[in-house]
Amino acid sequence: MHAYFRLIRSSSLFGLVIIASLAHAAENSNWTIDSRSLPTPAAASSALSSTLGDLPAPNIATSSQYPASDIEWRAFIDAADAARLVPLELLEQTYKVNIEKGEIGGVSVYEVTPAQISPEHQDRLFFHVHGGAYVLGGGDNAVAEAVQVAAASGIRALSVDYRMPPEFPFPAAIDDTIAVYRETLQSYAPAAIAIGGTSTGGGLSLAAVHRMMQMDLPLPGAIYAGTPWSDLTKTSDSLFTNEGIDRVLVTYDGLLKGAAEIYAASTDMKDPLISPVYGEFTGFPPTILITGTRDLFLSDTARVHRKMRNAGVVADLHVFEGMSHAEYLFVLDSSESSETFSEVARFFNIHLQ
Amino acid sequence: MHAYFRLIRSSSLFGLVIIASLAHAAENSNWTIDSRSLPTPAAASSALSSTLGDLPAPNIATSSQYPASDIEWRAFIDAADAARLVPLELLEQTYKVNIEKGEIGGVSVYEVTPAQISPEHQDRLFFHVHGGAYVLGGGDNAVAEAVQVAAASGIRALSVDYRMPPEFPFPAAIDDTIAVYRETLQSYAPAAIAIGGTSTGGGLSLAAVHRMMQMDLPLPGAIYAGTPWSDLTKTSDSLFTNEGIDRVLVTYDGLLKGAAEIYAASTDMKDPLISPVYGEFTGFPPTILITGTRDLFLSDTARVHRKMRNAGVVADLHVFEGMSHAEYLFVLDSSESSETFSEVARFFNIHLQ
Repeated sequence: MHAYFRLIRSSSLFGLVIIASLAHAAENSNWTIDSRSLPTPAAASSALSSTLGDLPAPNIATSSQYPASDIEWRAFIDAADAARLVPLELLEQTYKVNIEKGEIGGVSVYEVTPAQISPEHQDRLFFHVHGGAYVLGGGDNAVAEAVQVAAASGIRALSVDYRMPPEFPFPAAIDDTIAVYRETLQSYAPAAIAIGGTSTGGGLSLAAVHRMMQMDLPLPGAIYAGTPWSDLTKTSDSLFTNEGIDRVLVTYDGLLKGAAEIYAASTDMKDPLISPVYGEFTGFPPTILITGTRDLFLSDTARVHRKMRNAGVVADLHVFEGMSHAEYLFVLDSSESSETFSEVARFFNIHLQ
Repeated sequence: MHAYFRLIRSSSLFGLVIIASLAHAAENSNWTIDSRSLPTPAAASSALSSTLGDLPAPNIATSSQYPASDIEWRAFIDAADAARLVPLELLEQTYKVNIEKGEIGGVSVYEVTPAQISPEHQDRLFFHVHGGAYVLGGGDNAVAEAVQVAAASGIRALSVDYRMPPEFPFPAAIDDTIAVYRETLQSYAPAAIAIGGTSTGGGLSLAAVHRMMQMDLPLPGAIYAGTPWSDLTKTSDSLFTNEGIDRVLVTYDGLLKGAAEIYAASTDMKDPLISPVYGEFTGFPPTILITGTRDLFLSDTARVHRKMRNAGVVADLHVFEGMSHAEYLFVLDSSESSETFSEVARFFNIHLQ
């Protein structure tokens, strides 16, 4: 076979340029990609595209800064969380849900009950794990996505306000998630629970399922992994190709890098409970994955999808044109947002029992 | 709802940078993205990654040239096709298939019979449409992918050597494809036929199904759209974001642009029979779509997937880490290649009748 493989490889699809260049192949290569001009994505929805048209290009240099000490982190987190806080009452009004703050297994949680629960979802639960790079998005911020999914699917939701750095590094977040999940099993059949969230929420959901398997806990019926942070190391190719193109995360070399370091602390970042893409996916529940072509975590998402498919897991991947990281969560009048929550609702309907 | 939407949008996920910059929003914006250094994709297969490591960065300037007249096109096409030709005997030996050249409905075709036909595929056919930007890949080059799929799936294949520019612009390619398809319906149940191919082969397959619907022909049972050229205009966002990053196609502004012009000739490039993404997908057969994170046609693929999902079509999307356009066709010892042909085989097994 080898002669044939070499022949094919060296001739490639539009082979002439590549054949010519093989003769002068570099030893190894960090390719240098020239500066380029990037129009707004013409085939994204007008809502998404106009949002981008209103913004200046992301500034990698500015986005590469992050707090240098626990005190600076705490100040940064408090300011960022305060700036994005949406009052619970406004969420309740907008989405016609009831939100109750509570505690389960010693962990702070938010219980979301939509005014209309779909008949098929009467005995089911969306178990939500919020995002925010393992540092942001705690407290009342935790619940917004749970509300969006609960309203779109007509399903009860529970959001875990897990402990985070700088005070509580790994494994506090996963311990809290598992503690709440175990209590939840008293009230719901595991196959009637969907676990999920976006970004860190997606990654932590996947890590929690790895942990459930280690502990021989019954697994949930479905996973929603919205652009999951599945690899906290700087490995995924889209961290390089989409740097400065993703307008939300912009670069790995700022908040993400700093947050990965204070979250992992002394544990190996390739531990599957921290970077779930390195785990074994055989036996995982059906999973829906969402990302965008401009997403810094496009590769984090696609890599998990491939590992799942190769392990025989039912896994559906959706990639939105021109969408940066997690924009379906906050460009709410876009079709990217409504399609994401419709796909998630459809997936839960098919796979929850 | 609007007050809430505005609040959410302006606070975003890691909102501070964006809030700050909104105050100085540009009128409209072609973002300028700085030059960057791109390592080989560490999480791609070693076979794929080492291929990239051996190559210099794609040169956009070189790749932007294309023939200027029919005579130049003919010379370019003949040289390119000769350079990549694999003798049919070598294909037969390597893949243990028999290849017969023939003619159906007045169109040149290649019939591929694998030594081992899977029991479930005895009465089924893979109807192959080759790639090559509507100019390359004709003659004996047409059949290579048909052979790969036939061998991987254990299914008979038929490859259409459709007429192409510069002598035969649109609609010759689609007319020939339809002519052969109609004849094929004499021997196979439509639900037992999978139509498909890569790049132009994927796009032309989708366009042919649009044409079948216009003509009220019975539709095939499945579609394999490998990184389909679904939009011949310069619209897809990945044409910009992955320019110079895709090492195979490199840029739209060379061969692709020139080929689109001589293929469409006087017809609107947004005609769904030329750019199938602009068509209506309701009623399309189940479709498997393949692309890569570095693929210039990442958006062409993802946009078709979204349109299909919104039309209620069964459509599975697979995105390979660090993969440029169609590399599964010629980095044959890579897991990206074997996984692609396994996914296609699995998909045919599930959806063909």
